[in-house]
Amino acid sequence: MKISELSRRTGVPVASIKYFRREGLLPAGRATAATLAEYGEEHVQRLRLIKALTTLGGLSIAATRDVLAAVDQAESTEGTLGAISYALPVPVTAASAGDADRDAAAEAAAEADVVGLIETMDWRVPDTSPHVRGLTTALRELRRLDADYRPEGLVAYAELAHAIARLDLRRAAAFDDSPALAEQAVIVLALSGPVLELLRRLAQEDQVRRRAAADDPAPADGHA
Amino acid sequence: MKISELSRRTGVPVASIKYFRREGLLPAGRATAATLAEYGEEHVQRLRLIKALTTLGGLSIAATRDVLAAVDQAESTEGTLGAISYALPVPVTAASAGDADRDAAAEAAAEADVVGLIETMDWRVPDTSPHVRGLTTALRELRRLDADYRPEGLVAYAELAHAIARLDLRRAAAFDDSPALAEQAVIVLALSGPVLELLRRLAQEDQVRRRAAADDPAPADGHA
Repeated sequence: MKISELSRRTGVPVASIKYFRREGLLPAGRATAATLAEYGEEHVQRLRLIKALTTLGGLSIAATRDVLAAVDQAESTEGTLGAISYALPVPVTAASAGDADRDAAAEAAAEADVVGLIETMDWRVPDTSPHVRGLTTALRELRRLDADYRPEGLVAYAELAHAIARLDLRRAAAFDDSPALAEQAVIVLALSGPVLELLRRLAQEDQVRRRAAADDPAPADGHA
Repeated sequence: MKISELSRRTGVPVASIKYFRREGLLPAGRATAATLAEYGEEHVQRLRLIKALTTLGGLSIAATRDVLAAVDQAESTEGTLGAISYALPVPVTAASAGDADRDAAAEAAAEADVVGLIETMDWRVPDTSPHVRGLTTALRELRRLDADYRPEGLVAYAELAHAIARLDLRRAAAFDDSPALAEQAVIVLALSGPVLELLRRLAQEDQVRRRAAADDPAPADGHA
């Protein structure tokens, strides 16, 4: 198909398609003349993926390029999943939280919280993981802000996060090792975050409304 | 204290403090001379909150202003929680997902998915909730991208999101109705999202490593 048809099929403007080409996010089409190229279904799928990552996933062009490179290069299911996990932007970084405002005591306490939590959960993650550093930064700030902060309260969140990650991984690894797996993994790992956040917000709304109605709160064992 | 001391205490540069003042995020100090003002502990706390919302929470200045206005105006615990919930930015909006690329069939199917899920969960949320619309948009895009998408799989996520929201609300409402409650609620509602996302990423990392080590997967009943 021509670039105009590719644009119509994906809803991505021609100028954006050309931009993604120049930035190396989208492979070239098959050249049919000096200024014409023929695109296939693989371009439709890749463009939809780029669009989902940059819109739903909120990724920058540079982060999208990193994720797609990880997808194209990974050789095993675990390699694909691991590479994608590290290529995705970390929601909290030391820089984003204002590193100039370091508080050595809060920092040390947050580090101890994270080490203790990882031990309690028996999570196999290296100290160098960007997610370990991000969590340390987030907890350092929470320690300073949240008058009711208790590190032991994190375990309940971590248990639920663990259960969610199991659902994620089951969906992400639903395909054999192939480009289909890699694309599936990107979709699940990058996009289940926003979906989960929306579900959590809806559940919060529900519980606020039940409180406001002076109604029975949700029963302790769940929604039913 | 003087503005220089306020800056030192919070790690927020003097220029930024003046900017937050001009933008109406921070109340004025007590004027002690034509160009001097005296600030108190309430300014320290408010500045830390602004910093946390704009850095950890990723909120824009406009969104931060909306959240703080909700905090300052709410009259009941539920009013505070509800106002904050609606003032926080929605992670997925129709506009952010590229509304030009509407697919009527996918849109209708996603709407049915959301209605069905809310019914199954017995969530009391109005159709007009920004979170309902955000979830509809996210599911529309997932339907088009995820070759393994099954709406019934959402219930398991929703159950876990519900459990997380219960933890959130318990922490958010840990104080009596007062400015302390409002600040606590902002901290919990705005910042537990990034913390949860980091915990989910760590749990994903753990499970990918266990798979890669050709080790036993995590047992079905949790981490222990």
